[in-house]
Amino acid sequence: MSTVEQALKYFYENKKQLTESYFDLVRIPSVSTDPNHRGDMIKAAEFLSETLKGIGFERVEIHPTDMHPILFAEKISNNPNAKTLLIYGHYDVQPADPLDEWKSDPFQPEFRDDYLYARGASDMKGQVMASIIALESVLKTGDLPINIKYLLEGEEEIGSPSLDGFIISHTDLLSCDMILNPDAGMVGKDQPTLVYGLRGMTYFEVRVDGPKTDLHSGLWGGNVANPANVLSQIIAKLHNPDGTVAIPGFYDRIPPMSQEDKIRISMNQLSEESIMEMTGAPAVYGEAGFTPLERQGVRPTLDVNGLYSGFIGEGAKTIIPAYAKAKISCRLVPNQDPMEIFNLAKDYILSIAPDTVRIKVFLHSAGPAYLADDAPGAQNLVDAMQEVWQTPVTYKREGGSIPVATVMLRELGVKSLLTGFGLPDDGIHAPNERMHFPTWLKGIETLIRFYLSFGGE
Amino acid sequence: MSTVEQALKYFYENKKQLTESYFDLVRIPSVSTDPNHRGDMIKAAEFLSETLKGIGFERVEIHPTDMHPILFAEKISNNPNAKTLLIYGHYDVQPADPLDEWKSDPFQPEFRDDYLYARGASDMKGQVMASIIALESVLKTGDLPINIKYLLEGEEEIGSPSLDGFIISHTDLLSCDMILNPDAGMVGKDQPTLVYGLRGMTYFEVRVDGPKTDLHSGLWGGNVANPANVLSQIIAKLHNPDGTVAIPGFYDRIPPMSQEDKIRISMNQLSEESIMEMTGAPAVYGEAGFTPLERQGVRPTLDVNGLYSGFIGEGAKTIIPAYAKAKISCRLVPNQDPMEIFNLAKDYILSIAPDTVRIKVFLHSAGPAYLADDAPGAQNLVDAMQEVWQTPVTYKREGGSIPVATVMLRELGVKSLLTGFGLPDDGIHAPNERMHFPTWLKGIETLIRFYLSFGGE
Repeated sequence: MSTVEQALKYFYENKKQLTESYFDLVRIPSVSTDPNHRGDMIKAAEFLSETLKGIGFERVEIHPTDMHPILFAEKISNNPNAKTLLIYGHYDVQPADPLDEWKSDPFQPEFRDDYLYARGASDMKGQVMASIIALESVLKTGDLPINIKYLLEGEEEIGSPSLDGFIISHTDLLSCDMILNPDAGMVGKDQPTLVYGLRGMTYFEVRVDGPKTDLHSGLWGGNVANPANVLSQIIAKLHNPDGTVAIPGFYDRIPPMSQEDKIRISMNQLSEESIMEMTGAPAVYGEAGFTPLERQGVRPTLDVNGLYSGFIGEGAKTIIPAYAKAKISCRLVPNQDPMEIFNLAKDYILSIAPDTVRIKVFLHSAGPAYLADDAPGAQNLVDAMQEVWQTPVTYKREGGSIPVATVMLRELGVKSLLTGFGLPDDGIHAPNERMHFPTWLKGIETLIRFYLSFGGE
Repeated sequence: MSTVEQALKYFYENKKQLTESYFDLVRIPSVSTDPNHRGDMIKAAEFLSETLKGIGFERVEIHPTDMHPILFAEKISNNPNAKTLLIYGHYDVQPADPLDEWKSDPFQPEFRDDYLYARGASDMKGQVMASIIALESVLKTGDLPINIKYLLEGEEEIGSPSLDGFIISHTDLLSCDMILNPDAGMVGKDQPTLVYGLRGMTYFEVRVDGPKTDLHSGLWGGNVANPANVLSQIIAKLHNPDGTVAIPGFYDRIPPMSQEDKIRISMNQLSEESIMEMTGAPAVYGEAGFTPLERQGVRPTLDVNGLYSGFIGEGAKTIIPAYAKAKISCRLVPNQDPMEIFNLAKDYILSIAPDTVRIKVFLHSAGPAYLADDAPGAQNLVDAMQEVWQTPVTYKREGGSIPVATVMLRELGVKSLLTGFGLPDDGIHAPNERMHFPTWLKGIETLIRFYLSFGGE
């Protein structure tokens, strides 16, 4: 069995050469959205395939999809009691545009101060390579105490159209005891982070139909209900004056915040000033009685995502629109049932709608919130991070969702370890994306310790 | 001086040939919106020019514009005290599409029962030719007691882009004592109609800006005000629960309905059933305490004409939109000042807007309501119609506006006689447009009587 000390020694002795493989991967412009880079997508998948074979993976498969291939790899441990860790990652990147805002070539990694600048340096080639380099360091110095599977897709930046289907049809291949998803990042460079909660969602659409066609507002104005006005009145009634959602029953299943949640959340900072600076909104606005981070992670919301009615071009057109529609989504928290919330919303909207129009409320999608501080391996990961950083781990509840984690929980029955070593100011999806190199090195150390933490079993 | 009897005799003796010139005009497919019919536009203008010259107009001018020519013609009376009547009309028509819904060629007039079917038969080649044929009947049988000017445009169906400029720069040429605009129509075939009121308008736009860009609704939902929700709340507050407009001062300058107004309006019928049938709206909705026709003609309104925010394509996108906007118009009634109403609306909206967003309210257009039962010549026209139909004239207040009447009042200082001999079921702008021929004949009789009614002066 490899020891942590041996593996770390190997890593630091071979750091330059190992880091070179990270550079080689970011040099491949694997922009998934751009058909001109189709060949680069295959190149990136093949590079990773060769890299994994090179460190001892016996089984490496490139599965074609309608778009970009999915790479599956497996390394079986000699340990007969070995648990299996599935590592999720993606090898595609965002486009580099606008190119003229980059200070160096996005696909030629360049060091400036403590940072490595390149498209994908943080999101997430740096994360994938950290996991592989940590693995190599262990494998070159002894036995790996766990089985490792890799699932690497090339379509994350375009919404992962092939991934769900692949997971659903390959549940045996992907079966595992733990899942590591290092695409979630840290809240700050001195705050190793475990994302343990994701909000769920109910997404629906409200359509208000009035006259059979757009009407002349002079001729008919005053005698028929205007669908745009009616829709506005309905939307206005979805919130109370204090900012809470007015749908009866919306909050009923949400337990009071636990003391642990409060403590974990208060470990982070999200000032009103920084919200205003980051969003450009002239003020912070939200549910009274909660901090910004509580509102972001622990409280549900309701937002209009889109609104349309009538004439929206330049100039003026005097019509009573035939219909109006709104796309509305609720971010949900644990214990809220997405379908129940949809039905509550629908019932409430129908109950407040006047009979001067016809109303339809229909569902787009529904997914539950996700709470994963009990994800298998969480304590091992937390211990490893604390060992490296010598500071308590930050437990974070995200406001958004990570669909792959939800799908994997449903299909494989395993909650994901949502972490990573990217920082909020890495500029992912933006020009001059970068990776904080000292943090990346700590990440590799962390993963070496994490992989080897299962040695005693 | 021609007498009514002589002129009518001439008309009925030459009806077939006179009607033929009406057919000739509708045979020219002068579709103003279609560049392929540019030549037909000129053909129609030249046809009318020749026709007017043929009946004795000394001065006939075709004025080119950026699009389709404006025809001006003048016939001076021998009567030294003659008043001048300006007749407005348009020689362009709507496109005939969808062609396969026509039962006969839209540009080959065909009689079926009492109706003449053709594009433009009612709107408004039939009206223009009625005015010319009545004039010919007078001119062929004696002297015309008034001066006549024609202003015929070819862009009415595309919004009259050249007309305002032409009127503004030709006020001397167009100077007159009375204006006849026979583009307004009748409320029913046994109800000769004078439109004596038009509503005015204030059209403005409300824009709500929040974050500097669309935000991820998971990350930021709960902490910033959503511009689409805020806009909906603002719009909802523009009306009271009883359907009245909630802008303070909105109704302040409107006097109570006069007894005369009430009587005139109650002469017409507009049942709730017919509103529902014509509009397809599931219910009639409007200000309590007023009949549908009162709401249409005498009461002001506020309607959202267009609404936009965020993502309105197919599917779902989970964003907090950066901004939301609404186009809003108020139909106004006499005594309401359009700019004052804009300022009242703006002040109110700014007063109810939260400081969590940035609000802009800006004006698109403003025009006053128009009350013209005192238009010069109104009594002569009313008498002529009553003589022909042997029934009291219907006084109608329209819900819409007729921009040319507003411009002419402003530039020429003369209110228009808004009338015409088209019927509500003529199908203007639709397939199988038609003219009720017996009504058209009565219209010519009416205009003969009207022209000759100024003989005593």
